[in-house]
Amino acid sequence: MEQSTAKKPIRCKAAVSKVAGQPLEMVEVDVAPPRAHEVRIRILCTSLCHTDVTFWRMKDFPAMYPSILGHEAAGVVESVGEEVVEVSPGDTVVPVFSGQCGDCPDCLSDRSNICSGLPFRFLPGMPRDGTTRFAFAGTGEPIHNFINVSSFVEYTVVDVAHLVRLGPGLMIPPDKACLLSCGVSTGVGAAWKVAAVEPGSTVAVFGLGAVGLAVAQGSKMRGAKRIIGVDLNPDKCEIGKRMGITEFINPNDTGGKAVSEVIKEMTGGGADYCFECIGSTAVTAEAFSSSRMGWGKTIVLGVASGAAAPISIPSYEILRGRSVVGSLFGGLKPKTDVPLLAQKYLDEVRSWSWTSS
Amino acid sequence: MEQSTAKKPIRCKAAVSKVAGQPLEMVEVDVAPPRAHEVRIRILCTSLCHTDVTFWRMKDFPAMYPSILGHEAAGVVESVGEEVVEVSPGDTVVPVFSGQCGDCPDCLSDRSNICSGLPFRFLPGMPRDGTTRFAFAGTGEPIHNFINVSSFVEYTVVDVAHLVRLGPGLMIPPDKACLLSCGVSTGVGAAWKVAAVEPGSTVAVFGLGAVGLAVAQGSKMRGAKRIIGVDLNPDKCEIGKRMGITEFINPNDTGGKAVSEVIKEMTGGGADYCFECIGSTAVTAEAFSSSRMGWGKTIVLGVASGAAAPISIPSYEILRGRSVVGSLFGGLKPKTDVPLLAQKYLDEVRSWSWTSS
Repeated sequence: MEQSTAKKPIRCKAAVSKVAGQPLEMVEVDVAPPRAHEVRIRILCTSLCHTDVTFWRMKDFPAMYPSILGHEAAGVVESVGEEVVEVSPGDTVVPVFSGQCGDCPDCLSDRSNICSGLPFRFLPGMPRDGTTRFAFAGTGEPIHNFINVSSFVEYTVVDVAHLVRLGPGLMIPPDKACLLSCGVSTGVGAAWKVAAVEPGSTVAVFGLGAVGLAVAQGSKMRGAKRIIGVDLNPDKCEIGKRMGITEFINPNDTGGKAVSEVIKEMTGGGADYCFECIGSTAVTAEAFSSSRMGWGKTIVLGVASGAAAPISIPSYEILRGRSVVGSLFGGLKPKTDVPLLAQKYLDEVRSWSWTSS
Repeated sequence: MEQSTAKKPIRCKAAVSKVAGQPLEMVEVDVAPPRAHEVRIRILCTSLCHTDVTFWRMKDFPAMYPSILGHEAAGVVESVGEEVVEVSPGDTVVPVFSGQCGDCPDCLSDRSNICSGLPFRFLPGMPRDGTTRFAFAGTGEPIHNFINVSSFVEYTVVDVAHLVRLGPGLMIPPDKACLLSCGVSTGVGAAWKVAAVEPGSTVAVFGLGAVGLAVAQGSKMRGAKRIIGVDLNPDKCEIGKRMGITEFINPNDTGGKAVSEVIKEMTGGGADYCFECIGSTAVTAEAFSSSRMGWGKTIVLGVASGAAAPISIPSYEILRGRSVVGSLFGGLKPKTDVPLLAQKYLDEVRSWSWTSS
């Protein structure tokens, strides 16, 4: 189904970030047609990920202005560039910042989800040629794209390696689908695939944003017995409990005691799995200290402000059988695993006796 | 077979460390008889582990003087204290700094080798009552023991939880058995159990001392294809090749290039497994940088001088699917796994058509 807009620029609205930390401006932009291996999509729904905020605040490299932020979205294919056979106009798709070229050693291995064919970078530019498809309307002045997606706009152009097609059997509401584009996949994947939480485990989740809540949900699905949520916001206690949290710690309410000490007391030595879902190296250290000697695993999910901020781990403590592992996108391969999560959502909804057909 | 020395102190020679960094002094000491759960053993052979040197040099806590260092040894049981049924006088035993009580959640789990029943500490003192069995001959002035073993002495007292019995079918020469007491078990175990190196893997070993050479040997046994050894001592190239190293890097000969850069070039992105066998947090950082994006694992084996020295890891680099894991004693449970290594040694010797019967 060829669109009348195909092969032409589309003029539409975007929320553009012009200066670090300043409000986004709603402006008209021109979105160029997709080049080879690229797809132009109409954004149906986009949500806000904390990584958008981190980069919006960032004054230094690798943030670049002006740019169109946003990377958690669902959309419909408007037109496709040459070589694209995987999706067609009208398809429902979920763009993902992390790609899956399908051909590199990483995409061909079960052990990695970090595509090395089109390696993920925080730098702007389309993955194959480094240029942008966005410009201010009329002037032609370029606007940078953001981590391979840019969703705070009505139409965006995404490399096909960064798109997941949701077929007719996987029609889930766009406001749910867009969460699979980053946060929920990252959290559920981290519990499911990176940690591979075992039934009966004790889990601690630092930060109950979308990612942390999804970790709780994933841990519950895997049969964790105790899921301890940690957040400064007291409202997260109730929200967390709906998502699987069994106990809640507010670091402001520990009488000055370190959260790791509280967790060690509650669990008799520490949690089996500790998830850092904030993007703070100080919290990573606290999560590590909360992990059990012998086999405690700390899973780092948050993107720290200042990509080079080091994580500091006491060397003797790691010798006692602890480990630290990091992952992007919850260790999931977008094209392989996001449809499985969409199916899981549909199965869950059906199990509630709500109709989804 | 009751010994005539049983239940009495034994006067014998020891190499005592009186002042940090100063030569050990050969003196006469009195070794008290074993208390409940303890075993007095005659040391047949002891070797020098770098951890002895690290603690010998250490001026501050947790090093304490005077003390009897040494923890890599093989011996024969002289007498046993009450409650000891596992070994009898005359048995060949290997003492291990890390215990296995057999009853705690860690000893009962396959996932941990860090006994929590008698937790390992660098502090001196027998594990159950914190006292020492050593005193200067005649004066009664106490001498500290060292990490549950103290082998630079003719007789020592070790808790039975820290002893591995080598039965009549596992009679290996004492100068080989003593290596199973720490270095070789740590290295082979790290490759075998902690990393679980896969056939065809690429491995980098930082530091080719006893532990690093054993990592090479363990990696070779597991079918690693490339084993890159890194050491400042050029003689380690030849020794390393006899133990399985396939390539050698001397950090002094890279023309100023970081070893991690050299390894990334050699391997097209980094090694699958990087082992730190030195005890340097700077080398740990270099090992981490040498590990492959997507699944690269860094295994920390060396004990850093200053137990609290932190390991520093760039947070963004760990997000790209890398991990860091630490282990004591190569992740092995002493009583369960050391006999398996002794058997492996015997099988290997037999396969060389040397007689061992």
